Amino acid sequence: MTAPSTSSGTNPRLSMNQATIRTASLDDALRLVRAGGYESIGLWREPVQEVGLAEAARRFGDSGLRLSTLCRGGFFTMPEGRERRAAMDDNRRAIEETATLAAAGAPGSRAVFVLVAGGIPEGTTDLVGARTRTADAIAELAPEARSAGVTLAIEPLHPMYASDRAVVSTLKQALDLAEPFDPAVVGVAVDTFHVWWDPEVLPQIERAGASGRIATYQVCDWKTPLPADVLLGRHQPGDGIIDIAALTRAVEAAGYTGDIEVEIFNQEIWDAPWPEVVARTAEAFDAAVGPHLAASVTA
Amino acid sequence: MTAPSTSSGTNPRLSMNQATIRTASLDDALRLVRAGGYESIGLWREPVQEVGLAEAARRFGDSGLRLSTLCRGGFFTMPEGRERRAAMDDNRRAIEETATLAAAGAPGSRAVFVLVAGGIPEGTTDLVGARTRTADAIAELAPEARSAGVTLAIEPLHPMYASDRAVVSTLKQALDLAEPFDPAVVGVAVDTFHVWWDPEVLPQIERAGASGRIATYQVCDWKTPLPADVLLGRHQPGDGIIDIAALTRAVEAAGYTGDIEVEIFNQEIWDAPWPEVVARTAEAFDAAVGPHLAASVTA
Repeated sequence: MTAPSTSSGTNPRLSMNQATIRTASLDDALRLVRAGGYESIGLWREPVQEVGLAEAARRFGDSGLRLSTLCRGGFFTMPEGRERRAAMDDNRRAIEETATLAAAGAPGSRAVFVLVAGGIPEGTTDLVGARTRTADAIAELAPEARSAGVTLAIEPLHPMYASDRAVVSTLKQALDLAEPFDPAVVGVAVDTFHVWWDPEVLPQIERAGASGRIATYQVCDWKTPLPADVLLGRHQPGDGIIDIAALTRAVEAAGYTGDIEVEIFNQEIWDAPWPEVVARTAEAFDAAVGPHLAASVTA
Repeated sequence: MTAPSTSSGTNPRLSMNQATIRTASLDDALRLVRAGGYESIGLWREPVQEVGLAEAARRFGDSGLRLSTLCRGGFFTMPEGRERRAAMDDNRRAIEETATLAAAGAPGSRAVFVLVAGGIPEGTTDLVGARTRTADAIAELAPEARSAGVTLAIEPLHPMYASDRAVVSTLKQALDLAEPFDPAVVGVAVDTFHVWWDPEVLPQIERAGASGRIATYQVCDWKTPLPADVLLGRHQPGDGIIDIAALTRAVEAAGYTGDIEVEIFNQEIWDAPWPEVVARTAEAFDAAVGPHLAASVTA
C-alpha cells in the first residue's frame, strides 16, 4: 500500500482537472490545488471566461501551477451554416485562450486544447457526415493552432456517447483523424474511462506514442451499474474495474512524460468538500497510477 | 412511405425476438407472432424451460414458425472452478435445446445459439483474463456444437456493457474469436444496437460475410438520452439515430439471406398490449429495414 500523500509528497506529474472540483471558482480551484501540493491543473473554459482571459491568465500565472490542458472545445459536427461558423469561431477563441494560459503558467505548461467532436445532428442518422465534418473542422483549425503554438487533442469518447456527444469513439479513429497533421499540432487525448474496453487499445497507445501524438493522459475509473446520468459514471482511479496499471504502463512505454490529469464527473464527488476531494484524488493517484510511472513519486 | 403491413404482407424475413414481448408465455408468443403474419421467431431459453424442452418443441412445431435463434448463453468469463463448470454445462444444455427446437421448427429454421460472453469477474480488473477465458470456452463448446449441428453466434455487445455483461465489444473482436473455427460452427451475431457506432463496422460486416460468419442479424434503434437502466435503451427500428439502412444494405451485400430479428428491451414496449407490439414491430421493420433487403416484401 502507498501511504496517503501529503502536500510535499504529491506526485509531480499529477494534474487536477478542474471538472473534478467543478463547483469551485477559478480562484478557489487554483488555491486548493496548490495547497494540495499539485504542480499542475487542467483548466476549463467557463471558469476562465467568468473572470476574463487576461485576468484569468494573470491569476493563473500567480498560482505557480503548470497548465496541463484547456478543456474543451469541438462540437463541430453540424452541417455548414451559421451554427457551424459560430462553433468554429468559438474554437478559434479557445485556441487563443490555450496559448495565453500556457504562456502564463509555470515552466512545463502544455498548450493542449482538448477537442470533443460532438454528436449526430439532431433529427438525423448522419453519423458518417458528422465524422466527415469532424475531419474538415480539424483541417480548418490546424493552421491556427500551429500559428498559436497549440496542440489540438482529439479525444475519443466512450461509444455510449457517440450519438449525442462525440462521433469519435476509438483511439484508432482519433489517430486516423490526426495522421495528416504535424503531431505538434494535432494529437490525441487518452482517457482511461473512454478507452479501457477497446480490444485495440494497447497497440493504439503504442502507435500514438510512436507518432508522438499523446497530447494528454487522463485517468479515472468505471463502475457498474452506471448512474442514471451516464455522464456522471466516473470514479477515482482504483475504485472501479479499469486496469489502470496496464493502461498507465502502456502510456509510459509509449514515451509520454507529461502531466496526468484526474478528471471525474461524479455528483457525490462534486458534493464533497473541495479539500477532501483534492487530497483523496492525490491518494487515489498515488495508489493506482504512481507505482506504474517510470519517474515515480519523489519527495 | 411503406404502407402499414397486414398479416398477409408481413415481411417473410422478419422474426420476432421473444424478448420484445417478454411478458408473454411461450404459447402466447407463438400464437401472437403467428397471428401477426410472421414466419419466424427467436426464442428465449427461460420460457422454453418453463414448459420443458420436449413439450416446448412440440408446441413450437405446431406453430408452423421457423426458429431464427435461441437466446441465449455464454456468461463464461469466470476463472476455472465450480461456477465455470456450471456455466459450461448450462451452455451444453442450450446447444441441445437449440438443435431440438430447430429440428421441430418449420423448414428454414436456423440452429443458431446466441452467446454473450459475460463481464469482468466481480472484484477484479481482469478484462484480459476474461477475454482469454471466452476464447477457451468457445473452443470447449465448438465440438459439441458441431456434433449437434448448431452454430454458436458470438454477439459483440455495446462497450457500455463491457464491464458487467460482455467483454466482447466489437464485431472485429467477435470475428477474431470465431476465426479458428468452421463458420458453420462458430459465427457472429450482428445487432445494430451494439455495433452502429463502430468506425470499422462496415468493413467488418463485409469480412463476416466473406467468411460466411453472419449467423444472425438483429435490428433495433438507439435513442439518447439513455434510460436509467441502460439495458432498456432499445427502440423500434427507425425511432432513433442508427443508420439502419446502411447497416442492412451492408449485411445484405455480405450475402446474409436469413431471418432478421427485432429484439427490443424497453419498459414502455413491454408494458404495451402484445398484439399492438407485434403489429408495430412489423410496421417499423417494413419502413426501416424492408426497403433495403434484396428480397423485399412479397405478399
